[in-house]
Amino acid sequence: MGKPTLYTSLSPALLHLYNVRDCIVVVIDILRATSTIATALYNGAREVIPVDSVEKCIRLGKEMACITAGERDGQIAEGLQYGNSSFEYPREFVQGKILVLTTTNGTKLLHAALAKGATEIITGSFLNFSSVCDHLVQENRNVILACAGWKDKVNIEDTLFAGAVISKLRDSFEINCDASYMSACLYQEGQQNLYDFLKNNNASHYHRLMNFGLEKDIRHCLTLDIASVLPYYINERLVI
Amino acid sequence: MGKPTLYTSLSPALLHLYNVRDCIVVVIDILRATSTIATALYNGAREVIPVDSVEKCIRLGKEMACITAGERDGQIAEGLQYGNSSFEYPREFVQGKILVLTTTNGTKLLHAALAKGATEIITGSFLNFSSVCDHLVQENRNVILACAGWKDKVNIEDTLFAGAVISKLRDSFEINCDASYMSACLYQEGQQNLYDFLKNNNASHYHRLMNFGLEKDIRHCLTLDIASVLPYYINERLVI
Repeated sequence: MGKPTLYTSLSPALLHLYNVRDCIVVVIDILRATSTIATALYNGAREVIPVDSVEKCIRLGKEMACITAGERDGQIAEGLQYGNSSFEYPREFVQGKILVLTTTNGTKLLHAALAKGATEIITGSFLNFSSVCDHLVQENRNVILACAGWKDKVNIEDTLFAGAVISKLRDSFEINCDASYMSACLYQEGQQNLYDFLKNNNASHYHRLMNFGLEKDIRHCLTLDIASVLPYYINERLVI
Repeated sequence: MGKPTLYTSLSPALLHLYNVRDCIVVVIDILRATSTIATALYNGAREVIPVDSVEKCIRLGKEMACITAGERDGQIAEGLQYGNSSFEYPREFVQGKILVLTTTNGTKLLHAALAKGATEIITGSFLNFSSVCDHLVQENRNVILACAGWKDKVNIEDTLFAGAVISKLRDSFEINCDASYMSACLYQEGQQNLYDFLKNNNASHYHRLMNFGLEKDIRHCLTLDIASVLPYYINERLVI
């Protein structure tokens, strides 16, 4: 038996090029959906329900008496209670609760992976990096690293995370995928200081979040293994 | 007046994300379409007509009494006369002639850029690197670097070329584009030895062409400024 394969999709608009069926798909949306998801579940949230619109978030919030969260242009979206920052979800607040989170890029990708028949869908962030890597090695199945990007454009931080995974796991997988090697190369360049790398390379999300005064959020989302959980996407919910 | 903008599309499947209208689009298909185009025109070909199928190539060849060229799986395609290698098009053979060349990825992108209303479409390769760069600086217009990739997947060599252009021209353009910075970063890593970089990063085209015994072609296509022309795509033909 050969090694399982690993591919990287740098944008949701490229996911259709990969055979998602019978694969583990790792959804990556570093700033900030999959980081917030890891934090909320690590801090004891019962489940996180990702939805693609504020309207759906409000509706589910009413139906299920749960926390509703989401931002538009750096502000809590009208009709919702909380924002997208990990810092809003400490254990004393979120434990035992259901969090409905509006995300655009990440949710789209979760739905797409599900629709295409992925065997398993998990979410990855630097906060739960080692949990993801350990799981992928243990499962010994084909893997697709799926970057959420930003409105279908590729972005540096999601690619860096893919590169970090590949740099760690390249010996466990057969990798015939230029995007994967490009990601690993980017991570080689940036790993010394991910924050400075985003800043020095003029990363679009870096600027967007800095404009909202969210340097602390960016730094948090680039921190390794401070929320060591493995979020599974099952029945349209994320649970551990 | 601010600087003109520069964006990089890493795959034809991402080109729709960029506003091609009123831009110069640089089509990049390093292995080997845009390298062969530069060589043939440099060696005096009257024009190169890129087409997307062998059938169309055969038809045009009959109508226009021109050279027909194209490969499938490393062999000259049935019904055509020549292959995709620059080495088949020395001056003594190609001068004054019309070359009809079947390419899949490159032609698709040329058509797409034209359909979307690009102001100007040119082709880039390492062989005509400085001609492209000098032109882009002189024109002082918005630029999109459009990588042909392989069947809509991103590839290392086209991204490296985009990165080479960006590394040289970054001060002349306003660049708010993660893909551009990722490309420049890849080029920083690879520029010392592009051939070894493709080899060491297991580039898919490197393997495909090596399997056909085409190391010499790969090395040729990675050589700077040995065919200093500027091919324009006008009336569905490439001319200088």
